[in-house]
Amino acid sequence: MTIQKATNITWHDGNITRDDRERLLNQKGIVIWFTGLSASGKSTLARAVEEKLFEQGHLAYVLDGDNIRHGLNKNLGFSPEDREENIRRIGEVAKLFADAGLITMTAFISPYRADRDKARELMEEGRFFEIYVHVPLSIAEERDPKGLYKKARAGEIKQFTGIDAPYEAPQHAELIVDTGKYSLQESVELVLDYLQAQKVI
Amino acid sequence: MTIQKATNITWHDGNITRDDRERLLNQKGIVIWFTGLSASGKSTLARAVEEKLFEQGHLAYVLDGDNIRHGLNKNLGFSPEDREENIRRIGEVAKLFADAGLITMTAFISPYRADRDKARELMEEGRFFEIYVHVPLSIAEERDPKGLYKKARAGEIKQFTGIDAPYEAPQHAELIVDTGKYSLQESVELVLDYLQAQKVI
Repeated sequence: MTIQKATNITWHDGNITRDDRERLLNQKGIVIWFTGLSASGKSTLARAVEEKLFEQGHLAYVLDGDNIRHGLNKNLGFSPEDREENIRRIGEVAKLFADAGLITMTAFISPYRADRDKARELMEEGRFFEIYVHVPLSIAEERDPKGLYKKARAGEIKQFTGIDAPYEAPQHAELIVDTGKYSLQESVELVLDYLQAQKVI
Repeated sequence: MTIQKATNITWHDGNITRDDRERLLNQKGIVIWFTGLSASGKSTLARAVEEKLFEQGHLAYVLDGDNIRHGLNKNLGFSPEDREENIRRIGEVAKLFADAGLITMTAFISPYRADRDKARELMEEGRFFEIYVHVPLSIAEERDPKGLYKKARAGEIKQFTGIDAPYEAPQHAELIVDTGKYSLQESVELVLDYLQAQKVI
């Protein structure tokens, strides 16, 4: 190994900060917390927003069941304590991603208001946006892409949100997107307009 | 709220992938796993590498005690099970950051070979680089910036790595940096040279 003896590099005392990374990325590091029933379209919407942001040169990342449940949270089940810990960890990881400067999106049912509020409390004012992905239960149940509602109605899945477990709708969501009423494209535009208005992008 | 009806946007089926993000960032998403005794200089080195990468327009992020122990892993203590879970979670979070395209650095003692190997196994070949930040115990103990070795010697801290708990040195580290021999600046250059050789940057 050869050591390059650098002679003309200024070494700063300070560490690289979120501000620095935000300057590099030309965006704000934030958390968008999508919440809503199973099959409301949270993940689909988050992925579509991610794609549109990417086309504009922005760096975003989606945390959802695909990359969390089989990894970081694979040692958690569905007991009340585990559900709370599940959301707690997601909130903490989202905070790290936002600190890294990314437009961070989480897409989990996250049915309990208290758990979502704890995730919000981790963040500075103006860096956490709760988006309620709203559809009537009847539409979610009609969509049922994975057949989960059917199984829940048949009693094969217990404690399923909206059937035999509660969903506590946000009372002060930054944005409500009704995916029963708007197309995916329209829903994406709603989110992007909001991010622009908030000077995230 | 006004909906902007976009008419000329092509909607792709595919999601944004790590490849896409790497193209945007002009770098590879990887994990650099710094391991070594307390006071070996892991965090200092990682932060200095981060700064140099930033000056070159790269996006990096350091996971260390400062942002992990009081957040994601605040519900973990120092029992053997908790230590293992601590490193497991860090490995999983680092994997997510690398998937997001970032040059991800972890700076934890991580004394057990088995735990580090599990973190490595989460990653694809060529995306995990273990860097052994090596100093003789005597030098680490001399530095002792937080007075921890002193307390461990006095028996005030139990199970302190290097004193009354083992440190299992890497057998196949991608790089060994002897911070007792090299200056910080030289150590940084060693790491950057390595990243260049590996085409990470």
